Amino acid sequence: MLEEKLIKEKVLRDPIHNFIHIDDPIILDLINTPEFQRLRRIKQLGIASSVFHGAEHSRFGHSVGVYELARRITERFGHYYSDIWDPKERLVTLVAALLHDIGHGAFSHTFEHLFHTDHEAMTREIIMGNTEIHSVLSQVSPDFPNQVASVIAKTYDNPQVVQLISSQIDVDRMDYLLRDAYFTGTKYGEFDIDRILRTMQPTANGIAFDIAGMHAVEDYIVSRYQMYWQVYFHPVSRGMEVLLEHLLQRVQELYRSSATNESIDNNFVGPLLAPLFTNKALTLSDYLKLDDNVFMTYINIWQSHPDPILSDLSQRFMGRRPLKSMEITNETAPLLDELKVLVNNAGFNADFYTAQNRAYDLPYDDYKPNVAKPRTQIDFLLADGSHRELADISTLVAAIKGKASIDQRFFFPKEMLSIEPDELFADTFKQFRSFIRNNSLTTPNPES
Amino acid sequence: MLEEKLIKEKVLRDPIHNFIHIDDPIILDLINTPEFQRLRRIKQLGIASSVFHGAEHSRFGHSVGVYELARRITERFGHYYSDIWDPKERLVTLVAALLHDIGHGAFSHTFEHLFHTDHEAMTREIIMGNTEIHSVLSQVSPDFPNQVASVIAKTYDNPQVVQLISSQIDVDRMDYLLRDAYFTGTKYGEFDIDRILRTMQPTANGIAFDIAGMHAVEDYIVSRYQMYWQVYFHPVSRGMEVLLEHLLQRVQELYRSSATNESIDNNFVGPLLAPLFTNKALTLSDYLKLDDNVFMTYINIWQSHPDPILSDLSQRFMGRRPLKSMEITNETAPLLDELKVLVNNAGFNADFYTAQNRAYDLPYDDYKPNVAKPRTQIDFLLADGSHRELADISTLVAAIKGKASIDQRFFFPKEMLSIEPDELFADTFKQFRSFIRNNSLTTPNPES
Amino acid sequence: MLEEKLIKEKVLRDPIHNFIHIDDPIILDLINTPEFQRLRRIKQLGIASSVFHGAEHSRFGHSVGVYELARRITERFGHYYSDIWDPKERLVTLVAALLHDIGHGAFSHTFEHLFHTDHEAMTREIIMGNTEIHSVLSQVSPDFPNQVASVIAKTYDNPQVVQLISSQIDVDRMDYLLRDAYFTGTKYGEFDIDRILRTMQPTANGIAFDIAGMHAVEDYIVSRYQMYWQVYFHPVSRGMEVLLEHLLQRVQELYRSSATNESIDNNFVGPLLAPLFTNKALTLSDYLKLDDNVFMTYINIWQSHPDPILSDLSQRFMGRRPLKSMEITNETAPLLDELKVLVNNAGFNADFYTAQNRAYDLPYDDYKPNVAKPRTQIDFLLADGSHRELADISTLVAAIKGKASIDQRFFFPKEMLSIEPDELFADTFKQFRSFIRNNSLTTPNPES
Amino acid sequence: MLEEKLIKEKVLRDPIHNFIHIDDPIILDLINTPEFQRLRRIKQLGIASSVFHGAEHSRFGHSVGVYELARRITERFGHYYSDIWDPKERLVTLVAALLHDIGHGAFSHTFEHLFHTDHEAMTREIIMGNTEIHSVLSQVSPDFPNQVASVIAKTYDNPQVVQLISSQIDVDRMDYLLRDAYFTGTKYGEFDIDRILRTMQPTANGIAFDIAGMHAVEDYIVSRYQMYWQVYFHPVSRGMEVLLEHLLQRVQELYRSSATNESIDNNFVGPLLAPLFTNKALTLSDYLKLDDNVFMTYINIWQSHPDPILSDLSQRFMGRRPLKSMEITNETAPLLDELKVLVNNAGFNADFYTAQNRAYDLPYDDYKPNVAKPRTQIDFLLADGSHRELADISTLVAAIKGKASIDQRFFFPKEMLSIEPDELFADTFKQFRSFIRNNSLTTPNPES
Repeated sequence: MLEEKLIKEKVLRDPIHNFIHIDDPIILDLINTPEFQRLRRIKQLGIASSVFHGAEHSRFGHSVGVYELARRITERFGHYYSDIWDPKERLVTLVAALLHDIGHGAFSHTFEHLFHTDHEAMTREIIMGNTEIHSVLSQVSPDFPNQVASVIAKTYDNPQVVQLISSQIDVDRMDYLLRDAYFTGTKYGEFDIDRILRTMQPTANGIAFDIAGMHAVEDYIVSRYQMYWQVYFHPVSRGMEVLLEHLLQRVQELYRSSATNESIDNNFVGPLLAPLFTNKALTLSDYLKLDDNVFMTYINIWQSHPDPILSDLSQRFMGRRPLKSMEITNETAPLLDELKVLVNNAGFNADFYTAQNRAYDLPYDDYKPNVAKPRTQIDFLLADGSHRELADISTLVAAIKGKASIDQRFFFPKEMLSIEPDELFADTFKQFRSFIRNNSLTTPNPES
Repeated sequence: MLEEKLIKEKVLRDPIHNFIHIDDPIILDLINTPEFQRLRRIKQLGIASSVFHGAEHSRFGHSVGVYELARRITERFGHYYSDIWDPKERLVTLVAALLHDIGHGAFSHTFEHLFHTDHEAMTREIIMGNTEIHSVLSQVSPDFPNQVASVIAKTYDNPQVVQLISSQIDVDRMDYLLRDAYFTGTKYGEFDIDRILRTMQPTANGIAFDIAGMHAVEDYIVSRYQMYWQVYFHPVSRGMEVLLEHLLQRVQELYRSSATNESIDNNFVGPLLAPLFTNKALTLSDYLKLDDNVFMTYINIWQSHPDPILSDLSQRFMGRRPLKSMEITNETAPLLDELKVLVNNAGFNADFYTAQNRAYDLPYDDYKPNVAKPRTQIDFLLADGSHRELADISTLVAAIKGKASIDQRFFFPKEMLSIEPDELFADTFKQFRSFIRNNSLTTPNPES
Repeated sequence: MLEEKLIKEKVLRDPIHNFIHIDDPIILDLINTPEFQRLRRIKQLGIASSVFHGAEHSRFGHSVGVYELARRITERFGHYYSDIWDPKERLVTLVAALLHDIGHGAFSHTFEHLFHTDHEAMTREIIMGNTEIHSVLSQVSPDFPNQVASVIAKTYDNPQVVQLISSQIDVDRMDYLLRDAYFTGTKYGEFDIDRILRTMQPTANGIAFDIAGMHAVEDYIVSRYQMYWQVYFHPVSRGMEVLLEHLLQRVQELYRSSATNESIDNNFVGPLLAPLFTNKALTLSDYLKLDDNVFMTYINIWQSHPDPILSDLSQRFMGRRPLKSMEITNETAPLLDELKVLVNNAGFNADFYTAQNRAYDLPYDDYKPNVAKPRTQIDFLLADGSHRELADISTLVAAIKGKASIDQRFFFPKEMLSIEPDELFADTFKQFRSFIRNNSLTTPNPES
Repeated sequence: MLEEKLIKEKVLRDPIHNFIHIDDPIILDLINTPEFQRLRRIKQLGIASSVFHGAEHSRFGHSVGVYELARRITERFGHYYSDIWDPKERLVTLVAALLHDIGHGAFSHTFEHLFHTDHEAMTREIIMGNTEIHSVLSQVSPDFPNQVASVIAKTYDNPQVVQLISSQIDVDRMDYLLRDAYFTGTKYGEFDIDRILRTMQPTANGIAFDIAGMHAVEDYIVSRYQMYWQVYFHPVSRGMEVLLEHLLQRVQELYRSSATNESIDNNFVGPLLAPLFTNKALTLSDYLKLDDNVFMTYINIWQSHPDPILSDLSQRFMGRRPLKSMEITNETAPLLDELKVLVNNAGFNADFYTAQNRAYDLPYDDYKPNVAKPRTQIDFLLADGSHRELADISTLVAAIKGKASIDQRFFFPKEMLSIEPDELFADTFKQFRSFIRNNSLTTPNPES
């Protein structure tokens, strides 16, 4: 009885939604699993906190925020749209919202690329495998874990539920935009979430919006577009990511060499990271022990590793000394090979001290029948019952529809801007610096 | 001494800028003139407060807000750009900012249209004529009033000062967007004013922005675009404006009739409004006595005027019962004459109960050499000293550049949607209602 | 059907609560009556907008805000406390919240004092009398108007409903504190309304709060205390109120003289104000025509009235030139008679140019069994079902419990601080100025 | 030249102060040292982020925020108070503000208690020792490091500078209250920082405030008081701290046993933590390698340590399963010994599974001549040049002046609330549970 009372009153204070309200014991039980608590130790924006120092928030806050949005929406649907929304879908929606990021690991992008993992597969494993999460979910019904997993995998048969969790205006995107805007301190990411929630409606085929919400939805798309250019694509943050990727590659090389060269100690990766570098498949249990802290601790240790490249890259990373960058354009692209040679000549191994990095986002697109993966467009309901697609009624959205935001950059050591060039490449080097200077236009961000 | 102390400490609390800081005695003296205090009695958004009930703020707050932005900018210019900004321009800039709206009257748009006045000419008269404002300004120097007037008239010879006061991103626009967004409660109008102020710079030819402010400026233009569609063009507000215009036209007709028809009492307009309806030119002194209260009081009185049209329109206005509207499109335009006939047949004099109204704004445009009136584009300074125009580097602004926002509507009594049509026009009438219904798409605003 | 659709979707955008949601046709009908629309023309803070220029908001916004809070609370009560809260009380609660201020007139405090009216009696008359409001209310049931009136009069038999509308933490106070803080721009008035609403509960005897809401309620009481001292008691605002009161008294005198003295024209009060000055009782219809605009318009006209006192006071009022003030303390009180003589000697009729004014508020009190008017204390529910009174668990509230905030001031013309004293009272006059200077401590407000 | 340009424009985006402005190369150089970057890896509120999930912000953001407040204040002092403020004090003030927390380590409170370190001594060592910080500071002048250290140690001879950095209303407290309120999402911590900064003045003896800032300062003290009770004293957060302290004590025990018992492997503490447990003094270099990540990583590893107490406490900590608590009052204090026996009997080693913990703060005090450590009271300047102390003019502050906020709690395993008691202590046990239940009043916080 005390327990029920507590559950009834359970709230988490949240700076974005003020309070996260928890009415269902199962939600509280899921939050209390070690798999979910692990999300507290994984930063939502990864290394971007090195540019936006306020953005040190974790995936835990985002996950409960996504849940809270789902809770508000399904409460409203249950109240106003009981004819078309099945209240039995409420719990699977809430749980899928809560767990949609459960498979994410530390520095996801870099991690997946290097270690060939896939956070979507991990999510499924955590939900279906031998975990406390699975055990809590199974209490609802034997098939419940599978239902939750299929919502996240977008194969669940109710398109309303799937679109709430994954679409161009889903609970995930709405929460992370508001949250990242709040923590970075960028006002561009704000939009009128209350208005959007109030005009959102279930339809036979999924989710649509009352025409009265058009401007709020338009503003959400524009905010998202602006957040990508200003926060998610930030070149300094990517200059740190490149450092991280290269130093982990160096670890991989050194670990492999240790197999054939006894003089190299393979103990330097420690018990938690070791499974990443052996040939054996990473177990779920191994995976769940990894978090930002583990990587940061070993990079800390590697600052004094005997390998000069590993120690130098680690010191740069810990001391926040990112690689600098230049935009890759039609004019600069042909220079890259020469620039790499220059970097090598200057004593920096170009494999570890240069990189090409491409940031990409598609801010909005309408439905393309011939595209395999369903891409749900944003539709509005008119008074006469007909539908209209967002870009069809918004000049601003029409301007960015179907156009990818892309930023390609070449990364190199900051020292390249100050050291003296040798004679052979003097002209190219001057060209290099001249390009760098001209392309400073492309980094109009606060911290450079 | 006490006076100096007071002046040094003088601040006005302001919800937009937190505090308005007054350091110059002349600014305080100008605020304390009856001409300036009159701005407290003129609503910034006129009748739009009947739709956005929070937006009851006056031109007084806006005027001191514009002054405060000018104060912050010139303080910064004086500190950082003393090579290119002449600190002697400070005072004329502050005063022009404070007084830029001093000539505005109650319900400006309607007023100017009906009574053939011009708030720009009035502004000049108030600054140059026999007023306390003129007398305060003359204390600075005999030519100072003229300098202030020329800044507002855009003929002042320093383009930096002129552009700060009047351009596509001037202190006037920045304050009213923030202020109107705050008081209406629409979040769309918010933008990062601190960032804009910090990246604004004087140049040889006027004002430009550091490239680091690009996203903040882009967001300002987008916010402005959204505010026009959602607030300034609101059809319900325009349905009230049309009522006001028609009832004042009716007063004009009745007043004129009274000249030839002794049975009509011309005393009904009262001492303050009378000068508007006689053939004599409106004096400055007459003009300065007019404010929102005067119009509202006489409309209140006219609710019981013997003329049925005047009393009915006055009651609709006081009771907030606006005319309804329909968008004028290629499809609906040919119907308007028939619709007017219908309204007449239904017993409503179409001259007073219908109207066509066009809302217009040009959200952003670049410089057109062949256009007479200089339209200052927004420029950014690059690291190499070159300039780039906003739409050249912003996809969003490029999408709306040079494209006017236009909303044309046909207004008619709400009763037309419920009364029974006579047989003759039954088909057209059904068509009317059908169009009205279909065009409800065009009013996605909160209060309809 | 279209009507129902509209009603279902009806929202008003509000800067405090984001949106006011209207689900019941009767609420919409009440808002659309001319009696309710009249609230748009009465400023919430009266003349205080002359000090806090942002605070030009009307009683209309406050009234719909109070309704919205009641709507949220009763929705929650219906959902979570159906055992102890009767859902049939919902409508009478919403309507009483909406109409609680319907009887207020322009510049209420001054008005009631001078013209011996009573806004509570007026409220009852508007609800029970021959008005559109009464007619809308009667559609619910013949007894419904009476029920609404009794809630507002605190005689309704359900203490839950009465306390929601009138207590030390009622929907009225919560809305006006948030609203006045927002529009003045003072941050002190903010508190965590969401938290308060979520911890509020119906009990057998009225309303109580879960102990989890203690800090939010404490903060509300502290905010209220601070708002009184900083906004509601502001001496400059009271210096304007005194001007208004005195000029209306002068009008009263002049009007009465006109009865016996034919040379005085009694037409100067105009048709709308005339009923205030005759000996006949003010009719409801007369009362409902009065608003801020009417008073402001006639004060505008009276600026050129032949009576020098009336025209001077009117010019001071329109030009915002308030009387100055000094705190009345044990030390200054004995000086007042002498000071009045001085003011008279300086050529200002002390009856019209001086005043004593007392501002009073009781920030919080617990229940006193022997006090006639029930004063509902704020109670918290503990886990064991027992109650504790707020001041019993809050050090801050205990510090101000039962202690009235009082500020008494003596008002006089600003000129008294600069004109030369005649010899007779030279010493007292110096004492006067010396006191004024020393008491500047008591006006630590932004605008003086 | 490029470097100077960059420095001129250098800003960090900050959600509290919008932007941190960096004009001095030395400030940028200090931020770029590895010692300062280390602050990114130490959470401002330590383990409190396990209760307030938004509060994951680090000491880095706080440190640059404190600097920014100092920058704004000294800029204002230089502008308005050049007679009494020496502009040469600017740089030492900014640097002391930036570095005031440089000596803090991970989980400071717990750390210092267990390992007998002192963050104030560490701060001095970092500033004066062989660090990059010292080397940057020495570029200003040979004595500059010493000056900075003496400001932080409160021995610097200019009381204005000392009070800005350390007093009851210093830049440190102002930043952390605003910042912690923002990130936790508690609105109580907000106050009007702009008003406080504008009324702050240098005096001959330190810092005082214009009387016009009284209400803002009062609100700051009240906010601080509320933040302590609601955030800093939160019992769940302290339940996590107790776990941390006990598990590190267990590590200490195990490490010491390993010296005499070869069967225990002392390698389990890893290279970075090892220096903490040996008998040798901790070197500065060792200290600077420690951060939150290191502790979190080893606790992660210790979850599978063979010692059952260490592994269990580590699992509780990582899985966020805090000890529960009960307030220690006159009534509960006599029970503690019996309760510990009960916990032992239930199979939990009471040394590691129970604790008494005392949270303490003195919200405000005036000057006590006989107290050794100078405690600077908050003074206001009146118009006549006299001073008055805050509590002398604020009823609210007077209520809490000199009264310590104290919360003492007894911690125990959550399981004690559900397991069956053995017969011997059955009565006490029932009493235990009964007390726990009754004292739930004392935890009115969101997350329990």
